[in-house]
Amino acid sequence: MEARLSQVDIAVDGVELGATLLSPAATFPGVLFVHGWGGSQVHDLVRAREVVGLGAVCLTFDLRGHERHLALKSDVSRAQNMADLEAAYDWLAMHPLVDRDAIAVVGISYGGYLGALLTTRRPVRWLALRSPAIYPDGDWDAPKVSLNADPSLHGYRRDRIAADANLALAACHAFAGDVLLVAASDDEIVPRPVTNNYERAFEHARSITSRVIDGADHAFTEKQHQTQYTALLVSWLRELVLGTREHSARQAVADAKERIKRGE
Amino acid sequence: MEARLSQVDIAVDGVELGATLLSPAATFPGVLFVHGWGGSQVHDLVRAREVVGLGAVCLTFDLRGHERHLALKSDVSRAQNMADLEAAYDWLAMHPLVDRDAIAVVGISYGGYLGALLTTRRPVRWLALRSPAIYPDGDWDAPKVSLNADPSLHGYRRDRIAADANLALAACHAFAGDVLLVAASDDEIVPRPVTNNYERAFEHARSITSRVIDGADHAFTEKQHQTQYTALLVSWLRELVLGTREHSARQAVADAKERIKRGE
Repeated sequence: MEARLSQVDIAVDGVELGATLLSPAATFPGVLFVHGWGGSQVHDLVRAREVVGLGAVCLTFDLRGHERHLALKSDVSRAQNMADLEAAYDWLAMHPLVDRDAIAVVGISYGGYLGALLTTRRPVRWLALRSPAIYPDGDWDAPKVSLNADPSLHGYRRDRIAADANLALAACHAFAGDVLLVAASDDEIVPRPVTNNYERAFEHARSITSRVIDGADHAFTEKQHQTQYTALLVSWLRELVLGTREHSARQAVADAKERIKRGE
Repeated sequence: MEARLSQVDIAVDGVELGATLLSPAATFPGVLFVHGWGGSQVHDLVRAREVVGLGAVCLTFDLRGHERHLALKSDVSRAQNMADLEAAYDWLAMHPLVDRDAIAVVGISYGGYLGALLTTRRPVRWLALRSPAIYPDGDWDAPKVSLNADPSLHGYRRDRIAADANLALAACHAFAGDVLLVAASDDEIVPRPVTNNYERAFEHARSITSRVIDGADHAFTEKQHQTQYTALLVSWLRELVLGTREHSARQAVADAKERIKRGE
């Protein structure tokens, strides 16, 4: 996302006026939304349209086991959904409007879990996780539904888990970008110990913004909680997207002043 | 500034995932800065680099009678500086990165006066005036410096002037876009009656944001007043630029939902 500064001459009445054009790069940050298990891309569109306002390109998609590929629901594995996410990421990163050095991943629940894992496989600069789910690492190719059927999952989500004891947490531990972590105070599916594990894991993050939405359940059923989450996400992305562009413009101006000083 | 929504298919493992790309237009709003008499484009660069952060293309330039063309100072007329401004506007509006339906003009003092007049000659969507100067309409081709030498100017700037009694005020009266008007409480050059005349003239503006910076003089000599002005300007432009892009994305999403509903 490189801003450009050019000294230009503008002709008028036979003279040339000195002018300076300062423009943002012609590419935009890319924001990839990953819905939760049982969700769909439609819900993400509400947030995507606000994020487009910041000057970002948004991609939403449906994981296998949902919508068009609902028939695969009982069979689809984490490995397959991870491949879905990688394919969506690659599609977005290849888009000519997208600055591939400025890609955000925004995941909810199972989508947050996959998003965390993606950071070890693809460059992710900004990572937003709402109520990210967690599963033991084993049986990576087993049907995803079988994981939730496992009675030990309930206890696993109440445990304190070290970052090196779970691949998603290990990914967070290694993550060096900016993080938004949003938890729901009344979440029975992904209770607070899970988000606490995530929060502790982000030891090397460039920044972390961690919030708990009071009174919200896992699905953010109430409209006001949805609104609060959207506002948090958009304000976090606004700071990063606008801040990055401004930083780049600041650099371009400083470089130009330096060149003038050196008499170039 | 039209956002685009496209339904796309993303291939993975022999299936196609349903996905939606929501992207801002590949053009940016254009922001044209007009410095005051005795000023130069360099001062505007500080603000321009922040405005680039919003995702806008900024152009600053030096009016004739300044910098490279300082020798013309005693001869240059309003007519010539108006031609300078038109030339700069046209250059910006022709730039391939610029959305010519979303051009802002940001003028200070004499630059604000010229900016107000420009709205009758070129499409301006957003107009920001800081301490806009005012002059009687006559002697349009006389040297600009002769206007300030006229002893009646002092009284003219203390009078209540109707919008139809001055071309710049008439331009403001006809202006239908959004307005930011910033006055300095301790301005001796452009005292409050002038900015009050401007404010009253903007009867048909889509919105008006009018502020007085307490303790500031005409030149905004103190750093804190400069900072306040920059913050006001950037926050005003942020609302408009981001709001317009978001509105456009919202429309794109609504249109897509409508198409789906109709079974297209």
